[in-house]
Amino acid sequence: MRQSHLFTKTQKTAPKDEVAKNAQLLIRAGFVHKEMAGVYAYLPLGIRVLERIKAIVREEMDALGCQELIMTSLQRKELWERTDRWDDEKVDVWFKSGLKAGGEVGLAWSHEEPIGDMMRAYLSSYKDLPKTVYQFQTKLRNELRAKSGIMRGREFVMKDAYSFAAGEEDHSRIYDAMKVAYMNVFTRLGLGDDTFITFASGGAFTQFSHEFQTICDAGEDVCYVSRKKKIAVNQEVLNDEALSALGVSRDELEEVKTAEVGNIFNFGRQKAEDIGLMYKDETGASIPVWMGSYGIGITRLMGVLAEKFGTEASMIWPKSVTPFDVHLVSLAGGNSDLAAEADRVYELLMENGFSVLYDDRDLRAGEKFADADLIGIPQRIVVSEKTVAAGSVEYVDRGNGGAQLVPESQLIERIARP
Amino acid sequence: MRQSHLFTKTQKTAPKDEVAKNAQLLIRAGFVHKEMAGVYAYLPLGIRVLERIKAIVREEMDALGCQELIMTSLQRKELWERTDRWDDEKVDVWFKSGLKAGGEVGLAWSHEEPIGDMMRAYLSSYKDLPKTVYQFQTKLRNELRAKSGIMRGREFVMKDAYSFAAGEEDHSRIYDAMKVAYMNVFTRLGLGDDTFITFASGGAFTQFSHEFQTICDAGEDVCYVSRKKKIAVNQEVLNDEALSALGVSRDELEEVKTAEVGNIFNFGRQKAEDIGLMYKDETGASIPVWMGSYGIGITRLMGVLAEKFGTEASMIWPKSVTPFDVHLVSLAGGNSDLAAEADRVYELLMENGFSVLYDDRDLRAGEKFADADLIGIPQRIVVSEKTVAAGSVEYVDRGNGGAQLVPESQLIERIARP
Repeated sequence: MRQSHLFTKTQKTAPKDEVAKNAQLLIRAGFVHKEMAGVYAYLPLGIRVLERIKAIVREEMDALGCQELIMTSLQRKELWERTDRWDDEKVDVWFKSGLKAGGEVGLAWSHEEPIGDMMRAYLSSYKDLPKTVYQFQTKLRNELRAKSGIMRGREFVMKDAYSFAAGEEDHSRIYDAMKVAYMNVFTRLGLGDDTFITFASGGAFTQFSHEFQTICDAGEDVCYVSRKKKIAVNQEVLNDEALSALGVSRDELEEVKTAEVGNIFNFGRQKAEDIGLMYKDETGASIPVWMGSYGIGITRLMGVLAEKFGTEASMIWPKSVTPFDVHLVSLAGGNSDLAAEADRVYELLMENGFSVLYDDRDLRAGEKFADADLIGIPQRIVVSEKTVAAGSVEYVDRGNGGAQLVPESQLIERIARP
Repeated sequence: MRQSHLFTKTQKTAPKDEVAKNAQLLIRAGFVHKEMAGVYAYLPLGIRVLERIKAIVREEMDALGCQELIMTSLQRKELWERTDRWDDEKVDVWFKSGLKAGGEVGLAWSHEEPIGDMMRAYLSSYKDLPKTVYQFQTKLRNELRAKSGIMRGREFVMKDAYSFAAGEEDHSRIYDAMKVAYMNVFTRLGLGDDTFITFASGGAFTQFSHEFQTICDAGEDVCYVSRKKKIAVNQEVLNDEALSALGVSRDELEEVKTAEVGNIFNFGRQKAEDIGLMYKDETGASIPVWMGSYGIGITRLMGVLAEKFGTEASMIWPKSVTPFDVHLVSLAGGNSDLAAEADRVYELLMENGFSVLYDDRDLRAGEKFADADLIGIPQRIVVSEKTVAAGSVEYVDRGNGGAQLVPESQLIERIARP
């Protein structure tokens, strides 16, 4: 894409009321637009990152045989009353509204109840199990405060998966496979080393759950981690029982701030019993389905990437989710021969399957490089009078230091593919 | 995908309260799930159709240089007050809710105001124009009645595009290109012959707008069309002035029921003036941007396809948007040699790039064919004792009549690609 065509521009400053680094950086670079506190639109550069994050998650979910669907934002009051989660005293993040036709509706902050209820139409026998489904869906949560940019929004995109099994053995197989798939996702996003499967509180149905916590100064959680043993415990469950279950001592653990990028949850049979999702076993007996749920914060992950790989005025996206593979910067100035050469490199890159942001704008080199640093595409190619004189282009892998002159004939093989 | 793995099953009957044919058919076939009146979830088969419709629309938008983004569901009251469209007396489809942090928010039924307002950060000079952006976004509309299935929902997916131009000439060029792109979309969906660019009322800013109306018995509009001249007028503006502008007489026009599948709208400079979206021209004067908006009902289109290409218990999807290219039906029964042969055909089809729903279930032939008719994949391949004995498979193009025995060596070239 030609940068002269891109409608967004970088901004010198972020909105004064924005305190989170991730949002300041992403607003300045033109990835997101702040509609109100905790509510962000995703602009062309931002939606490209989101879609690449989603594509990685989708690949990992599909590889497990999970089936994609999409539930609804509007929610039935009576469904959530059945599990006693309609009352604002029980769930304090509901947005609710009135129906013109009469009655109240909720806006989905979660989809556990509606997915479980829907499954009553499809799961009736042990022969129908196990099944796992997932969606990418916008959640709306009426948070009192929203100061963490896109890391904790009132409106955000989540991948949530739900598993349905006949018993604990089948459930555990899915649960363990999800753990692996989740770590694959975080590793592919460049967060593998800093992301820990974390012992956390289990809520109503189980003693413990597993969170995926990424070390991040802007995170809202505190965990105790052993980088060596790749073990972590959420502060909320740091006690002798947890330490003993993990086989570590308190001394081995380091206190860090973390962001919860994913969680997986074992409901046992309780959730399905509350919802009324039953199956018939081999003897014809009616038994509640064994359920699990599995969440990844898609927009939150984008925020965590900005926090970890960005500074105030500079960003380097992981190659797996960069909005474009290559940033081609033309320093042609008014020289039409140079501009034609840059055009030719642009065509060459696209013919070879790379996505390219092509800075063809008539601006000074300093402005172009400042914009490129802010936008954060990890691989940069510069066409200038100097490079053309040398029969080369300048190639920079921004994560790996300096600029190199590369003959055009060797350029394509030099560029890393995502 | 193996059908034994698909979690949805066909249903003998649709919910009793469902009166629309499109929803009855799509619920029975397992494409959608009714959450409440006018609110539907999209299941694995349904989301595949939706994504293929979106892919076609995206291709046509991108070809025009439109830039994709995604706005937010939560909306600021003060923004809509600025254009006097917050009041329920003025806009009667708002869902509104309270913010825990204080104040009211709206749920987006349209995005004209927020997109225009956001653009104030990016469009300041004539040099920034023209630009066109689009999104696929869920709209929420608090409709009093919702009896048309997915053709008119309280929650539905729309593609909405917005153009920003310095003046009428640039605007008209975009507007005319959109007309062509829209007809391309409807033609690619198999609706070209029955879809008309229709003269309709223009609302506050212009005398006329253009709707895209598809002849459809379940539609809510009435239009007067000349199939020969490919001309249509919405009943609401059928008068001498419109007839004269179109150069047709009343006698040439036939009254038909139609569904509005798209509309394009010229705002002139009024909308930007209301929002405060101004640009500086060559002389430095501040002038409101010339805006247009362009909508396509994505989920509605899926409903229209079901209405036009479906009967009560049978459907034939256009090849461009079918959930799978091919439905492979194995009649192996308990015969493991036949099952292995069907498995081999399944692999062959996938290796050649076709998406395949493979009915590997242990059911009677009659049940399998009834399900396949309902699901509606247009090309069917049957592997049975009879076909294997003939060294062939049975190939059916359901839109073009009978079954043919095709030698396996000729199968791949026989199958139509989308």
